[in-house]
Amino acid sequence: MQDTGIIILAAGSSSRLGTAKQLLDYQQKPLVQHAVEQAMSSDPACVIVVVGADAEAVAGTLVDHDVKICYNDDWSTGMASSIRKGIEALLNDHPLLTRCIFSVCDQPFLEAHHFMQLHENQLESQKGIIASAYADTLGVPVLFSNFYFPLLQQLQGDQGAKKIIAAYPDDVVAVAFDKGSVDIDEPADLRYLIQEMVSVSEAKAIIKKHAHFVRTGIKTLSESLGYTVAEQIISKYDIPGFRQSSMDGYALKFEDHNNRLEIVGEMRAGKQSDVTLLSGQAMRVFTGAPIPTAADTVVMQERVYREGDWITVADEQLTLGMHVREKGSEAEKGTLALAQGTVLTPAALGFLAGIGCEKLLIFEPPKVAIIVTGDELKELGQPLFFGQVYDSNSIQLRAALQKAGIETVQVFHATDDPAALEKILGQALLASDLVLLVGGVSVGDYDFVVQSALAQSVRPHFHKVKQKPGKPLFFGTKDETVVFGLPGNPSSALTCFYLYVLPAIDRMMQRPDSVCYSKAVTTVDYPKNSGLTHFIKAHSMEGKVLPLHAQESYRLQSYAQANCLLVIPEESTGIVAGEEVQVIVLP
Amino acid sequence: MQDTGIIILAAGSSSRLGTAKQLLDYQQKPLVQHAVEQAMSSDPACVIVVVGADAEAVAGTLVDHDVKICYNDDWSTGMASSIRKGIEALLNDHPLLTRCIFSVCDQPFLEAHHFMQLHENQLESQKGIIASAYADTLGVPVLFSNFYFPLLQQLQGDQGAKKIIAAYPDDVVAVAFDKGSVDIDEPADLRYLIQEMVSVSEAKAIIKKHAHFVRTGIKTLSESLGYTVAEQIISKYDIPGFRQSSMDGYALKFEDHNNRLEIVGEMRAGKQSDVTLLSGQAMRVFTGAPIPTAADTVVMQERVYREGDWITVADEQLTLGMHVREKGSEAEKGTLALAQGTVLTPAALGFLAGIGCEKLLIFEPPKVAIIVTGDELKELGQPLFFGQVYDSNSIQLRAALQKAGIETVQVFHATDDPAALEKILGQALLASDLVLLVGGVSVGDYDFVVQSALAQSVRPHFHKVKQKPGKPLFFGTKDETVVFGLPGNPSSALTCFYLYVLPAIDRMMQRPDSVCYSKAVTTVDYPKNSGLTHFIKAHSMEGKVLPLHAQESYRLQSYAQANCLLVIPEESTGIVAGEEVQVIVLP
Repeated sequence: MQDTGIIILAAGSSSRLGTAKQLLDYQQKPLVQHAVEQAMSSDPACVIVVVGADAEAVAGTLVDHDVKICYNDDWSTGMASSIRKGIEALLNDHPLLTRCIFSVCDQPFLEAHHFMQLHENQLESQKGIIASAYADTLGVPVLFSNFYFPLLQQLQGDQGAKKIIAAYPDDVVAVAFDKGSVDIDEPADLRYLIQEMVSVSEAKAIIKKHAHFVRTGIKTLSESLGYTVAEQIISKYDIPGFRQSSMDGYALKFEDHNNRLEIVGEMRAGKQSDVTLLSGQAMRVFTGAPIPTAADTVVMQERVYREGDWITVADEQLTLGMHVREKGSEAEKGTLALAQGTVLTPAALGFLAGIGCEKLLIFEPPKVAIIVTGDELKELGQPLFFGQVYDSNSIQLRAALQKAGIETVQVFHATDDPAALEKILGQALLASDLVLLVGGVSVGDYDFVVQSALAQSVRPHFHKVKQKPGKPLFFGTKDETVVFGLPGNPSSALTCFYLYVLPAIDRMMQRPDSVCYSKAVTTVDYPKNSGLTHFIKAHSMEGKVLPLHAQESYRLQSYAQANCLLVIPEESTGIVAGEEVQVIVLP
Repeated sequence: MQDTGIIILAAGSSSRLGTAKQLLDYQQKPLVQHAVEQAMSSDPACVIVVVGADAEAVAGTLVDHDVKICYNDDWSTGMASSIRKGIEALLNDHPLLTRCIFSVCDQPFLEAHHFMQLHENQLESQKGIIASAYADTLGVPVLFSNFYFPLLQQLQGDQGAKKIIAAYPDDVVAVAFDKGSVDIDEPADLRYLIQEMVSVSEAKAIIKKHAHFVRTGIKTLSESLGYTVAEQIISKYDIPGFRQSSMDGYALKFEDHNNRLEIVGEMRAGKQSDVTLLSGQAMRVFTGAPIPTAADTVVMQERVYREGDWITVADEQLTLGMHVREKGSEAEKGTLALAQGTVLTPAALGFLAGIGCEKLLIFEPPKVAIIVTGDELKELGQPLFFGQVYDSNSIQLRAALQKAGIETVQVFHATDDPAALEKILGQALLASDLVLLVGGVSVGDYDFVVQSALAQSVRPHFHKVKQKPGKPLFFGTKDETVVFGLPGNPSSALTCFYLYVLPAIDRMMQRPDSVCYSKAVTTVDYPKNSGLTHFIKAHSMEGKVLPLHAQESYRLQSYAQANCLLVIPEESTGIVAGEEVQVIVLP
């Protein structure tokens, strides 16, 4: 391959990753070193590494490698500057080279063999561009003949090689690179690649980071219970809109309260006109009624002597303004009545009604799809034959979603056929914000869930968690849609729902956690090996917690009696009676 | 009135009361003594007291009174025996008496004056029967002329004076006795009469005792979330219906596990036919799949060496029956699957689906009517004029009911007009299991709620509670229907809902309490006077609780921020920062 140079673009800043991805370890080597070694193994004329962000550190990992480091000080202007710098450096050393391959350093499945395939393909096809094909796209690594060098040198800003590939479709040959879509934008991607099990807390953190999609919508008060307010609600009126008595009694001028006062009328709640009040006069008023403009104080009816139409106040504790609700004292026109982020409890809805708010912006619940997989499953109501079981997952998950305030739930049933599953998943991904794949998430020969998710360009974040039950748990995202692959055993599926799915929903709805953690004292011993966090169906009452019988992951009978999950941490080797333990209170 | 004798029937056993009502104190005297003294004050020829149940004790309270005690040993056969005995005793001492009045001892509003009115009326009208009129009935005290004595002596069993009143309508004159309907069947009635405020715990106990109505109905699983099961659910099938593998692995005969085994096929989940297995053979199986009849054990796929179609087991922990779920191990046909009284959580519904249960009997939620009173109230969306406020109570109570799982809620708006309110209440009582009257429950001149409830024959149990807010709180029942009169101030109304109405609903739905009590440490001082239990809108987090601003009972703004109520007991004179206090966690 001595007629071909390889340019590795390694100048980017990995802003989504938080740390330089070029330097992340994969198989005990920094990714950039891994990429360089594969490139060199294909025996090219030269390997040029364009560095920019973290240039010194990236270059430092390559001091023992026979490559040319090309420093791009303009890296922050976009990828085009690195491409231009790379071509320039290449032609400087090898002015007569007829081909070059552009590659990157975050495709961990890229091997020397693939570079050689691109090269061979060029020799056979005599086309000017040989691109790698994956996930419905053509991209790097990509080989260009020298015809394209001047065009590459004219790219600007964020333009990349794809622009040129797209402009010359007739001169392009595609070479399959199935795992090319697996690139590294964050540590979780890497962890996925190396099949590492994540801890429970890592899994929660990863989900929290990715379940960020929110949608808002306008609702009436009666549609809003339990949702979170997505706007600052400003009061349109002064509430109350008039000075109001908070007691049944008499309105008067405070300066008059030592005199005998004549009752000149009464104002009951709902009275729609004001009345004047002179010195020496009092007005009979009732709770919620307006008080006369000239009055400033209300004395309770129990604290006066009344003779005919005259009263004498007998209230030593009476103060100016007592028992008068001032106009605007509940909500003042033009001021903040309810802050964005407030959960709409019955009290909050009553308050909003009281200030005349009819509609408001809320964070909408995600649209959810449940895809239940498994050839053995029958829907409730159908007859059951040998080898079949009733689908309980869709029933219980739908109920759990209903309890979580989710209205829109589509349920699909898929057989253990990858093509069918992929099609259903494709539909579900289009229509939903949250997809729950249930069953088939393990590594058995008929577990197609992860495979189908990847085929639908779902980006994997993890698929094994250090826990029991629910070790095989897939989590991925496609654009803003969140995808969970839950275990098929109903008990495990529900536990994973409470542990991971519900917190994701809470986050999407911008509301506090539905699941709360508490402490209780275990009444029995429960030994375990270290290595996995255990979640045990349990019943807690008055500060004590008892693990229930039938912990097997296919069994729901004990779950039906449970009100909490007892947590035994990863590193623990079990709990003993009398020990304080963590429990997760089921909502 | 020397031509008239008075017979006081005091022989009954007060079975509904649990204690002898004759002996209950009212105005510091036993009721029977009170009745005797009023009778004697009317100056009759004689007063005869018929005693039976608790005869000695009842007679004992009258030793200082000039009355004749008549012992009726047959009291348990019914009231007629006491009437017969009373007439007999009367004629024995006063054979020529022309009139007698029958009375009882549990009408605390009965006064001497009324006996005299009956007597005067007889003299004027010359009719043979002068009866008391109250609550659409004619009853005791009732005066009979001696023409009726023989008829009274022929009464049998539970027959009373009413039978004779009804038989001779032309010879009857009615004398109004408005408070005659207030009789004493239980201590709460008495407490109501003497206008005693009940404590919070007494109020709760009284509600608990009377909110006992339950209705059951058949629902499908998808309609049943959150309800309580009203039947013992027996499994119709063995679940699973076949022996099932709980792992991806190989099914084999345990006795064979030290041999090299030939893989003779595979059984995946959903496989609908059994396969045989001979010695020396193994079957590839997957989680949830049936295992061959002859197999007894499954070895995990990770614990075998496989070469082509042969495996060698490498699992020292393998035991007979491992990883096999026996037929019926989740639920055995004909046995109890889920007990009556279980709450239908998502897990319980999943379990029921799994055992093929499609429909079940549940305790239905009560039908609720909300009647909001107050001329000042406007419905949301209408323009607000001087003196008017928006009705927030119906919005917040409807939301609170929705959260409590109540589907059927009728909302009525009533003006401050007793006749209109009474009509609406009449409708609501007919159609509902639970009626919430809101506002007008106090003692202001326009507070008609208690009056309307009594007019609709709602039996009062209490109408003042030693608490703040919510001191005026009415509780009554009509037949099985429960009636609350909540304060009109929205904040007080909601607090009373959480404290009293929701527990009543929970009881009617036979489910655990929705409101739970907890402990927290207050971060500020909160002084109060002793005498009332205070419920303070507060926010608790991580074991600490902070009372919120704006505790006034008309204000909901702080309630919108609250997640609990801080409880300061009746006798307390306040709490200090750092003190552990009780909080009610809002649902």
